[in-house]
Amino acid sequence: MAQVAPVDEHLAEIQRAAVRIRGHVRRTPLLKTDLAPGLMVKPESLQVTGSFKARGAFNAVLSLVEREPDVAGVVTHSSGNHGQALAYAARAAGLRATIVVPEGVTPAKIAGIRSYGATVVTEGVTYDNREAIAEAIARTEGLRLIHPYDDWDVIHGAGTTGLEITEDVRSPGALVVPIGGGGQISGIALAIAGLSPESALIGVEPEAADDAAQSLRTGILQTLPSDPETLAEGVKSKSVGERNFGVIVGDALVREIVTVSEDDLTDALRVAWMRLKLAIEPTGALALAAYITGRVPAGTTEHPTVIVLSGGNFDPATVAALLSA
Amino acid sequence: MAQVAPVDEHLAEIQRAAVRIRGHVRRTPLLKTDLAPGLMVKPESLQVTGSFKARGAFNAVLSLVEREPDVAGVVTHSSGNHGQALAYAARAAGLRATIVVPEGVTPAKIAGIRSYGATVVTEGVTYDNREAIAEAIARTEGLRLIHPYDDWDVIHGAGTTGLEITEDVRSPGALVVPIGGGGQISGIALAIAGLSPESALIGVEPEAADDAAQSLRTGILQTLPSDPETLAEGVKSKSVGERNFGVIVGDALVREIVTVSEDDLTDALRVAWMRLKLAIEPTGALALAAYITGRVPAGTTEHPTVIVLSGGNFDPATVAALLSA
Repeated sequence: MAQVAPVDEHLAEIQRAAVRIRGHVRRTPLLKTDLAPGLMVKPESLQVTGSFKARGAFNAVLSLVEREPDVAGVVTHSSGNHGQALAYAARAAGLRATIVVPEGVTPAKIAGIRSYGATVVTEGVTYDNREAIAEAIARTEGLRLIHPYDDWDVIHGAGTTGLEITEDVRSPGALVVPIGGGGQISGIALAIAGLSPESALIGVEPEAADDAAQSLRTGILQTLPSDPETLAEGVKSKSVGERNFGVIVGDALVREIVTVSEDDLTDALRVAWMRLKLAIEPTGALALAAYITGRVPAGTTEHPTVIVLSGGNFDPATVAALLSA
Repeated sequence: MAQVAPVDEHLAEIQRAAVRIRGHVRRTPLLKTDLAPGLMVKPESLQVTGSFKARGAFNAVLSLVEREPDVAGVVTHSSGNHGQALAYAARAAGLRATIVVPEGVTPAKIAGIRSYGATVVTEGVTYDNREAIAEAIARTEGLRLIHPYDDWDVIHGAGTTGLEITEDVRSPGALVVPIGGGGQISGIALAIAGLSPESALIGVEPEAADDAAQSLRTGILQTLPSDPETLAEGVKSKSVGERNFGVIVGDALVREIVTVSEDDLTDALRVAWMRLKLAIEPTGALALAAYITGRVPAGTTEHPTVIVLSGGNFDPATVAALLSA
């Protein structure tokens, strides 16, 4: 397991990250809704590039340029929100970006990444070899690999969401955050541990991708035997990263990890669109699904439950099908 | 024309309305987007009941109770957002509400109004006789008619949107607001005239319902010869109200009224969902359509163009069809 620095050092890094990325990312609002008075939602779908990933990507890219002013560029393996966010942040910092994407990913995603000026490498890439290919490109082209979640700069950037929540609501009863590789929840965990330790931090996974729940239960980093089948494609990673495991399980900063079914998730996605009026992607509805199904505390006006809607880069055909069902 | 009080008296009424409705309605955020740095959006889709109408409805109901503590209830003629908002506000104030709705309105809308505890009257009601029927019910049942837009309390409530915008951005270059009956834009006009008179207030109508543009051009209150055909069903009224005309044209508080085609509107609606990540209704996309098509100033970071997204009560089948097109 990667060594974990004391929580207060991480909090200081998150506070530095907030200063570093200010002006590049957006301070998303914390919203009330018509659903319940004890609920508040943090829509990272309204973030630059449509997801929370912009926070980590900007912190990683800007930190890299501070440390290595002559660096040529960055590379990563992500066909999703991290790929788009890194491409966007690299361009803003004047760096090259190469994004390694498995063959067969939808053309819309590749077009999205290219629209931010990045090079897309797809030939011969699979879900299993993409990390190795990204590492090889980093070596041969002198680029720095920015891992989607197992990277302290990325984690500290994601943690700025936690700073904003505790600025906007003094004492949240619970914070509910999706878990894929664990970048977002470990960042928020390190912020909350220092600023609002009495708040319960709760992770949410699809039932089909419950590796983090298993890891928390067993105390050992668990890996899914195969790629999970879930509508929440942003959390399809087979395990959390080592650094993320260290925070979530090693430091015991996540109180509980709950799971939701695919039906719960589609119900929640409809509620997000129809009742919250927020156009989010399926992964973004995970925490809402946990709330609606009563798997997390209902919250009160004084100590609300805050749910993080992680992103809004939905596939229009998927949403069209759900809304016409 | 109804007599129009001096602008500063109206501003004082709007400021009193803001105090009166606080705690009942939401202070919606003013958001940046990925579209352009000179653009800010005010999503009233995130307002209580899903549209700006909650502001006017609460101000009207709470003002009524202050003036007539023994009043039995309220009545209006609106199958849309005003009907829902008035039903909701009346219930919160402990009043009965009767909503007169033309026969043939979709069951979902009637169910929406009933879900807020109101009585729905629909038998024999048409678009042409609904106002007369509402007036008759008011007389026979001792209810007060709350007109959807031609009512000072409703106008002053709607104007609180203007207060919030000028609190959040010191000097907007332009404000762009949809026009149906003119309630929202006349309220915002009266707020802006006192607080930020250098900002250009611009109205937007569908080409098929350009009565307000004609009224502004000719200086005479114009009425459409028949019900307009437009996807923007929230602005289908055949003319603006007398009080609204007095503010928009008589007081010359709206600089310009532009029109957008149905194709512009559907394009804007897709941009709202896909790029802004906001699940709005077609009427809510009118100002965005004017912005995208270059009919209003582009804005700068210092003097942004603020567009008001008026509501989010969309029909899911309509959204599904547009997203799968």
